[in-house]
Amino acid sequence: MARLNLKLLLFLLIAVVSCTLVTYIFTCGHPTSSHTSFIHRLKESSSESRGKLYEELLCSINGMYQISCRKEGREVFIPFSFLEKYYEVYGKLTKNRGHEQFEWSHSYSKVFKPTMRYNSSGMFMYFSNYNVEVRDRVKCISATEGVPVSTQWEASGYYYPVQVAQYGLSHYSKNLSDHTPKKKILEDGNLVTAKWQVPKGASVKRNYDHEKFTHVLEFNSHDSMGISIKLRQGIDLVLSLDLRFLSMNGSLTIFLEDRDRSTIFPVSFVCSPVLIQVLNSSGSYSTTYGLGSCQNWNQLTRDLHVDLVKGHVLSGRGKKLLKTKLRIHHLLVKGHGQLDNLTLASSNHMGMFYSSADWLVRHQDSSGGWPIGVKRKIASGKADLDPGWYSAMGQGQAMSLLMRAYYRSGKSHYLEAALKGMKPFSKSSTEGGVRAYFMNQYPWYEEYPTVPPSFVLNGFIYSLIGLYDVVSLAPHDQVGDAQLLFDQGMHSLKKLLPLFDTGSGTVYDLRHFTLGLAPNLARWDYHSTHINQLLLLSTIDSDPILTTVAGRWISYMSGKRAAHN
Amino acid sequence: MARLNLKLLLFLLIAVVSCTLVTYIFTCGHPTSSHTSFIHRLKESSSESRGKLYEELLCSINGMYQISCRKEGREVFIPFSFLEKYYEVYGKLTKNRGHEQFEWSHSYSKVFKPTMRYNSSGMFMYFSNYNVEVRDRVKCISATEGVPVSTQWEASGYYYPVQVAQYGLSHYSKNLSDHTPKKKILEDGNLVTAKWQVPKGASVKRNYDHEKFTHVLEFNSHDSMGISIKLRQGIDLVLSLDLRFLSMNGSLTIFLEDRDRSTIFPVSFVCSPVLIQVLNSSGSYSTTYGLGSCQNWNQLTRDLHVDLVKGHVLSGRGKKLLKTKLRIHHLLVKGHGQLDNLTLASSNHMGMFYSSADWLVRHQDSSGGWPIGVKRKIASGKADLDPGWYSAMGQGQAMSLLMRAYYRSGKSHYLEAALKGMKPFSKSSTEGGVRAYFMNQYPWYEEYPTVPPSFVLNGFIYSLIGLYDVVSLAPHDQVGDAQLLFDQGMHSLKKLLPLFDTGSGTVYDLRHFTLGLAPNLARWDYHSTHINQLLLLSTIDSDPILTTVAGRWISYMSGKRAAHN
Repeated sequence: MARLNLKLLLFLLIAVVSCTLVTYIFTCGHPTSSHTSFIHRLKESSSESRGKLYEELLCSINGMYQISCRKEGREVFIPFSFLEKYYEVYGKLTKNRGHEQFEWSHSYSKVFKPTMRYNSSGMFMYFSNYNVEVRDRVKCISATEGVPVSTQWEASGYYYPVQVAQYGLSHYSKNLSDHTPKKKILEDGNLVTAKWQVPKGASVKRNYDHEKFTHVLEFNSHDSMGISIKLRQGIDLVLSLDLRFLSMNGSLTIFLEDRDRSTIFPVSFVCSPVLIQVLNSSGSYSTTYGLGSCQNWNQLTRDLHVDLVKGHVLSGRGKKLLKTKLRIHHLLVKGHGQLDNLTLASSNHMGMFYSSADWLVRHQDSSGGWPIGVKRKIASGKADLDPGWYSAMGQGQAMSLLMRAYYRSGKSHYLEAALKGMKPFSKSSTEGGVRAYFMNQYPWYEEYPTVPPSFVLNGFIYSLIGLYDVVSLAPHDQVGDAQLLFDQGMHSLKKLLPLFDTGSGTVYDLRHFTLGLAPNLARWDYHSTHINQLLLLSTIDSDPILTTVAGRWISYMSGKRAAHN
Repeated sequence: MARLNLKLLLFLLIAVVSCTLVTYIFTCGHPTSSHTSFIHRLKESSSESRGKLYEELLCSINGMYQISCRKEGREVFIPFSFLEKYYEVYGKLTKNRGHEQFEWSHSYSKVFKPTMRYNSSGMFMYFSNYNVEVRDRVKCISATEGVPVSTQWEASGYYYPVQVAQYGLSHYSKNLSDHTPKKKILEDGNLVTAKWQVPKGASVKRNYDHEKFTHVLEFNSHDSMGISIKLRQGIDLVLSLDLRFLSMNGSLTIFLEDRDRSTIFPVSFVCSPVLIQVLNSSGSYSTTYGLGSCQNWNQLTRDLHVDLVKGHVLSGRGKKLLKTKLRIHHLLVKGHGQLDNLTLASSNHMGMFYSSADWLVRHQDSSGGWPIGVKRKIASGKADLDPGWYSAMGQGQAMSLLMRAYYRSGKSHYLEAALKGMKPFSKSSTEGGVRAYFMNQYPWYEEYPTVPPSFVLNGFIYSLIGLYDVVSLAPHDQVGDAQLLFDQGMHSLKKLLPLFDTGSGTVYDLRHFTLGLAPNLARWDYHSTHINQLLLLSTIDSDPILTTVAGRWISYMSGKRAAHN
């Protein structure tokens, strides 16, 4: 009897437990039929004992379509996958001290608050963060010019003065922000000599060069495989040298090794007008840059990682090569030529900076402009720019760069080029200049001097900074119109700034007004550029409108809006 | 031994079950400590057997604060209570065919797409939906003037021409959209006679009036309680009559009954300059309107429901009285006076319309303006308007009203007032007119003619509609400058329209540009007014910019935005 009772008790207990579990699974389970069917009561914590209802719920979006939401008590939960498209907001799951959390970001961009007054001989804004040459729209760094070649508006490539100047300004700024580079001279034809491996029939000798006023290394490979230097730890990938060839078949090749893949990638510099050429072979490819006519001394500064990456992209290989995985295996010269100051360094920012400055000096035309050789469309069928146009932004950025080159080198031809660069600011867009007027009253320096004007904000402010750099660094008696142009521009900026304010962001330009189009909203990185520029100007001009507007625009980046009535 | 084993088994089983339940509560329950602690696996339906994880998750909002979200699988759910504040979006739980759903609304406002060309003698926009007189900022309908008294910018009350015109235009439009009103003449002194309850000592008689050229009722209550008419089903609450008193102590009182509360509310009209006065008594109150000097014939049109509601508000009673609960219990006249055409109707829109038109005729000044007697501040410390200013919107709406009065009545004094109303359009804001110029080039008719200008959009377009109504309905040889003013205004509108476009809504005005402030975003009802106005104009002007812009602005109301670059 006792046994039976116990057995019965046991059975009942098991039945109750099973039932509980069945109920649990049923109520927690996912539905198949109705849209409010998967329902689960979550017990409230601690004191409160009322259940919370968690269920699926349809959300009707503006009466236009429906999405699946969730409801818990009186709270409705909206899926982020909907919100990110609807509002173009950003979110990601991250770990915060071991706990998973979701980071909601209204904008993806960043503002750099200046800590001191802007200095025309110092870093240019936050350009030390720029890596102009690795951008996809940069085809490569030309070996004849030492500056980037853009494919932004023409796939075949062209020199874009804005990009050339930004390349130089970024390296100028990196030079100020980075550690002192590691640098090793391999061969200077005199005191430092490399261990050249000279095959039979080939020769190297060190002569005094009457053009360079220094000793140089002369090499002649004749019919051999070439003369080489083997490197043990060639991890500094910025190469500099002075080079000229006395035969047309000359070449300099650097063999880069991918340490992970044990693959060798040759990068060559040859006497050829070609910009960049890639030859695929099984498992590897060779990249060749043309030095143009190479009988004269060429001062080369090459970031070999960038040189290889650009070949890598052209070879059709998708994934980029990591700089840290590369080292120089050996260098090889062929043909008959001379070289000097063969150097490897972790960086050579000033070399690259001066490449840009020199390019700008060489390519300025008699009107003081840096003509842009590609057609530019602003809006379909409206306001095109024909090849040969100048950009106030290009002029301004070039001026910022050239004034720094003048400041650092003391060489007056940089100053002269910067001063000449102001000439298009006084000439109307209709006459080939960059000057427009808002409603015939407020002068504006046009990044894109279209007719009718487009009033691009960021390009205008870059041009103002260029003018300011001239004012700051040019000898007082040579400043010319720079102060007037700057003051007039600042006056226009302060007056027209509110027209760029949408109450929740900014517009990139005023084409909606001049062309009667929808406003061309600035994406967040341009919006933050606007703010960074205003913050820079606020360090040199105390008018409160600059900080007030910048502050409001910063607040838009975390979802604040201007008040409505 | 067996018993012991069973007891042990039972104990173990209970322990296991308890443990399971503890685990269940812990995992499903609401957390007290960790933010990811309430976790529950929901079984996927049908074929898929993978569990979905539903859990609490912290969302970090722009790195500034945290809210509690939910996570299910890879989807994160954001609480609507956060979104409605962050984005100012609207949502409510509703039933759709028995199923609960959540209605997400980007805006709360509505667009009325016109179905036909705008007609200057037809309904005015969607004003048939307006109930100007019931608005909180309307103190009451004056019994001397027959038009609303505004408290919007001055608590003591004043006549605001814009509101007077809108009151008239709304009734004109209701007259066209509503059914024919029910109407009952109670007494016309001749053919229709009411059953007056005349106490001892009092008298009524019907005489021919040599001023009105018709028979009227003359009453004299002497020392009695007054002469009255009892009504059986007095549910038509719009009273009209012609009334004058021959003694200063005369009064007309309508006793309204709240059928639910069995309370009687008297509404009186007396010879007094007072606008409205309320006397509280226990459980009820009496409302009195002054007729001013009342020796001359007064043509009264009163919505008794509105008259009572305004007293109700002034009596300090919060909740409004429902029209459907009210009926007229009886009417009472006191003192010595005459009345005629005593009528009760379900509405008398044209009576109210002409009250407005006549007020505008009476109160137009020699410059053609309807001066506004209150100070108006546009932005703190900036751009104030001193009492006596004109509003282009007021002028325009008055013109729309007066042209309709002229069209319906054929009376030339309405036309003359409308034509005179254009005069301030040609006079600058700085000289007391309403005309401003955007950048000295585009004329704009200012709702608020501040210096510097404010360029309010909706008021400007109302002024254009007024000009159009003059062009449409005035005799060709009397149109004057109306066509020119309209054409110039349309030209400005089309050019400046893009400046009101924020890419996700509109601005109310251009004060951000003229005063250097944050943009004054239009709330959704002004945004939809902008759209409704453009759609109206698009029926009389085929320029595609009107429909293009209206279409884009409509799309903003469901969350679309202009493209960013």
